[in-house]
Amino acid sequence: MQRPLRPWLTPIIEPILCRNKLLTNALAALHHRRQNAQIPRLRLSLALSHTCKNILFIMFDQLRFDYLSCAGHPHLHTPNIDRLAQKGVRFSRCYVQSPICGASRMSFYTGRYASSHGAQWNGFPLKVGEMTIGDHLRKLGMQSWLVGKTHMKADIEGMERLGISRDSVIGARVSECGFDIFARDDGLWAQGPDGFYDERRSPYNEYLKSKGYPGENPWHDFANSGIDEDGDIASGWFMKHAHKSANIAEEDSETPWLTREVIRFIESQNGDEPWLCHASYIKPHWPYIVPAPYHDMYGANHVPAPTRSKAELRHPHPVYEQFANNLVGKAFHREEVRAAVIPVYMGLVKQCDDQMGVLFDYLERSGRMEDTMIVITSDHGDYLGDHWLGEKGMLHDASAKVPMIIYDPSPEADAARGTVCDELVESIDLAATFVDFAGGDVPDHIIEGRSLTPFLHGKQTPGWRDYAIAEYDYSATPMCANLGLRPRDARLFMVADKSWKFIHAEGAGPDGPFRPMLFDLENDPGELADLGASDRHTEIIDLMYERLGKWGRRLSQRTTRSEAQIIAGRSASRRKGIVLGAYDESEVDAELSVKYRGKAPLRPN
Amino acid sequence: MQRPLRPWLTPIIEPILCRNKLLTNALAALHHRRQNAQIPRLRLSLALSHTCKNILFIMFDQLRFDYLSCAGHPHLHTPNIDRLAQKGVRFSRCYVQSPICGASRMSFYTGRYASSHGAQWNGFPLKVGEMTIGDHLRKLGMQSWLVGKTHMKADIEGMERLGISRDSVIGARVSECGFDIFARDDGLWAQGPDGFYDERRSPYNEYLKSKGYPGENPWHDFANSGIDEDGDIASGWFMKHAHKSANIAEEDSETPWLTREVIRFIESQNGDEPWLCHASYIKPHWPYIVPAPYHDMYGANHVPAPTRSKAELRHPHPVYEQFANNLVGKAFHREEVRAAVIPVYMGLVKQCDDQMGVLFDYLERSGRMEDTMIVITSDHGDYLGDHWLGEKGMLHDASAKVPMIIYDPSPEADAARGTVCDELVESIDLAATFVDFAGGDVPDHIIEGRSLTPFLHGKQTPGWRDYAIAEYDYSATPMCANLGLRPRDARLFMVADKSWKFIHAEGAGPDGPFRPMLFDLENDPGELADLGASDRHTEIIDLMYERLGKWGRRLSQRTTRSEAQIIAGRSASRRKGIVLGAYDESEVDAELSVKYRGKAPLRPN
Repeated sequence: MQRPLRPWLTPIIEPILCRNKLLTNALAALHHRRQNAQIPRLRLSLALSHTCKNILFIMFDQLRFDYLSCAGHPHLHTPNIDRLAQKGVRFSRCYVQSPICGASRMSFYTGRYASSHGAQWNGFPLKVGEMTIGDHLRKLGMQSWLVGKTHMKADIEGMERLGISRDSVIGARVSECGFDIFARDDGLWAQGPDGFYDERRSPYNEYLKSKGYPGENPWHDFANSGIDEDGDIASGWFMKHAHKSANIAEEDSETPWLTREVIRFIESQNGDEPWLCHASYIKPHWPYIVPAPYHDMYGANHVPAPTRSKAELRHPHPVYEQFANNLVGKAFHREEVRAAVIPVYMGLVKQCDDQMGVLFDYLERSGRMEDTMIVITSDHGDYLGDHWLGEKGMLHDASAKVPMIIYDPSPEADAARGTVCDELVESIDLAATFVDFAGGDVPDHIIEGRSLTPFLHGKQTPGWRDYAIAEYDYSATPMCANLGLRPRDARLFMVADKSWKFIHAEGAGPDGPFRPMLFDLENDPGELADLGASDRHTEIIDLMYERLGKWGRRLSQRTTRSEAQIIAGRSASRRKGIVLGAYDESEVDAELSVKYRGKAPLRPN
Repeated sequence: MQRPLRPWLTPIIEPILCRNKLLTNALAALHHRRQNAQIPRLRLSLALSHTCKNILFIMFDQLRFDYLSCAGHPHLHTPNIDRLAQKGVRFSRCYVQSPICGASRMSFYTGRYASSHGAQWNGFPLKVGEMTIGDHLRKLGMQSWLVGKTHMKADIEGMERLGISRDSVIGARVSECGFDIFARDDGLWAQGPDGFYDERRSPYNEYLKSKGYPGENPWHDFANSGIDEDGDIASGWFMKHAHKSANIAEEDSETPWLTREVIRFIESQNGDEPWLCHASYIKPHWPYIVPAPYHDMYGANHVPAPTRSKAELRHPHPVYEQFANNLVGKAFHREEVRAAVIPVYMGLVKQCDDQMGVLFDYLERSGRMEDTMIVITSDHGDYLGDHWLGEKGMLHDASAKVPMIIYDPSPEADAARGTVCDELVESIDLAATFVDFAGGDVPDHIIEGRSLTPFLHGKQTPGWRDYAIAEYDYSATPMCANLGLRPRDARLFMVADKSWKFIHAEGAGPDGPFRPMLFDLENDPGELADLGASDRHTEIIDLMYERLGKWGRRLSQRTTRSEAQIIAGRSASRRKGIVLGAYDESEVDAELSVKYRGKAPLRPN
């Protein structure tokens, strides 16, 4: 697969390479490595295929920011993920743009806030026309592939309106938020009286069937169920079964299967073109159940005390109160639920970490560790009973903050390896980072995030953001109806800096517009005391509203003209005859009015 | 062209008609008319083609709200436009969404704020995917045609990305903001050393050439130029020539030509399908010049005193100061410029009004006045020296307020004929009104305006808006550079209620963020005293920022799911197996877990 570069080609090819930041960076990296490692000069000419730099964009689903040993978990050891953090940078304040799978992912994939791309909940289609990392990277010569979950719903109506066929290459990409599909499996093969929640084909279910697992939905019957005392299915949907071993060979469960798919993808690449691979795992997302040996690796003594206080339920914010009293919230009020779920959640994370070990070993063996950026993150967290809540949705750290570890193989990143960055990072920054890594200029009239490269290279970042924004649209939930809100008003907005977290709730209750929520992150890092009704905090609340106002006025839809294009176009119209504000000819450079002078022509009779 | 309805078809067709609000309304109107006019019952069955209701959406370019006699102009008599106001409703507080041709029109055509559709200045393409009135009306069986100007720039890059060919029907409509083209002529055939400002074909120039007008650009040389004392071209681009008669037969000038094109369009329709025709005139937009007899119909004694005060130039807001000192602003400081331009501007408006007379006479003769909604409006105003400004752009009434007259032929509108509505209306309301008139439900997750039908029918409108919003993006102007702003910060936002007008300027000067501007419309209707720096107005300024904040958080991009769809979808996932929050089976309706029960199947060996 490696083709030698003919020496006589060098003077022709080098100028081309030099215009391409991606290749130039790669050549610099090679040169650097050669000097350090005393690789003979000869080898450089063999290495053109190595100038490919790839991106392995790993996402777990519902992985809390603090369930990793590198993030300080006291019992859960994740040495493989920690190993990546040691080789890269771990961001300790990374917020997702919306703590719900679909909306969060569409923000990751577009680099845009949920209110900008509009796919604000699971199953709300990403509207045709929104640009994705796939669109940006393909322009730079990098392909963009999916292995796993996206939660993308295609905007079929929009595609039909624009005459875009799903069967065309373009239509397939539009339907899949910009990815080419190696394997798409959203990993939620729930099934009820009205049929499957997700009606696509499931490569994972097909895999299980090919291995001899019987039935229509082995995802449920084996990977996500155990067996009870009577030999009946003990479905993982019911949390009391969480501690049971899933009725499946560990290697056939979802996480190892996906790892093998990712490796199979990487092996399918011949090195001609750089790629981004979105390796997108469904776990540790519910159903909470895992096969042996992970099912009983952790026990009651490993379950941390919940981050919650009785005071939270006294005078609660009306929106918070709804969430604390919904089905999942109430379930997690019960200690038996936490005791059943959390050890298994830890087992699921442990399995993920072990699979990272498998994957990283492969990358090292294959040489890909040297030319591939690796990211580990998640689409949102999991309350697990903190704040009397389950699942995700509200905007406490347990839900809105995620792990974010980035390993950049470039020698420029050597300075920052193993560091922890405490700056405020948003999930939309990843799209900008990828474009930057692929050698492009970040189109900041489209992508709202900012490249994290300076942090990866240990550089100063003057003017970095002072606050992060997240949103949650709960119009599709019963909480919206319970509060008597119109769907358009069922929205929360978070503004967080390093000291304070502020949450504005749109809409109103019987007593008028909802008050905001406010947490003092310095003195109350557990976010236990909501100061939103406090008279002593009007100043910080005003500041947060000012920031939210500025964010609301952000430029998010002027995506067809870049700042540079606008500046360049400024004087064009004058040179095309738009001569404004002139009383007589003497006020205008004669050249500009060249078409407006001369003998008056004769009118026809 | 009218086909009789066979009597035996009636029982088949009537139930179909009854499901269609458009046809039902039309039948009701016919029935009403029949009763009033004693038209024999027999005729009803002949009248199916009359059930078509059409929309004639007339737009002038740069027509001030107050240069009409029905709006109180002391010297300019516009009896034909007044006639329409007598038959319909005149809205006295209609604001455009942005006082610049392109951005304003894209708001009219999409029913969305400029920050929502993103085409925030002339020549910024409307991004592919934005829905237009054409898209909405076609769904309702109404075609949407253009005769005249749109200032639309196609998003060629977006179309290429999505594989949409301009040669396809869909591509042609996407390129033309949803219209089918009867004649497109943007009417600005400016030409300079770098070529034409607008490189499309000009049907108007082609018309002039076909009539024997010589040269490459008779639009300039004849329609927009006079002849000076030496027999040279006296170009209308130079305002000292404004008073000269344009060197063209009046009937060949732009306004009468467009009227004839509109009539030709209407005659081309066979009555089978209802249509919207956007009759979009370029005048009274500059170049300020008009053929006889309009060129000297008004004189110095008809020029109103400028609405301006020396105080405006003391301690001016930095952004306002830039506009007052730009080329056009400075030109209009000169009395000779106002004296030259304003009588001719009045002549241009008078010609427009006379052409409305021609058009309305035709509509009455042809019967179309009885089945056609007629709108007269403009895309923005013209300062004409008020506030030491020329052109448009800033957000005083002279620039941001426009005429808005709507005639609804329905009998339901009889109650409101000849009334003036003082409520706050936005140009985006027109798209909603059209959808409503065409029998559709306004898709309020896409169209941000609200239907004006209640006002047209003399009904109460509880909960009507308390404030109107307009924006101006001046990133493409030298004023942005002069202020040292990044293009993304060169934006103004207006919030106006009936008492106050507030303008926020994004960005900052050397002394920090710009202060807002504020005008007391009750006590200072001329907007002469900017109270934005006043300590005594912090309360109203806070309220205006609160309103702007709420507007900034508006739901503008969740366009793929309606409120009704969201409500309807709420419980769907539970019936498709998403069983959240259950500890054991007893907590869930047995029907929901039907797929999660039974004997555990055997694993393969």
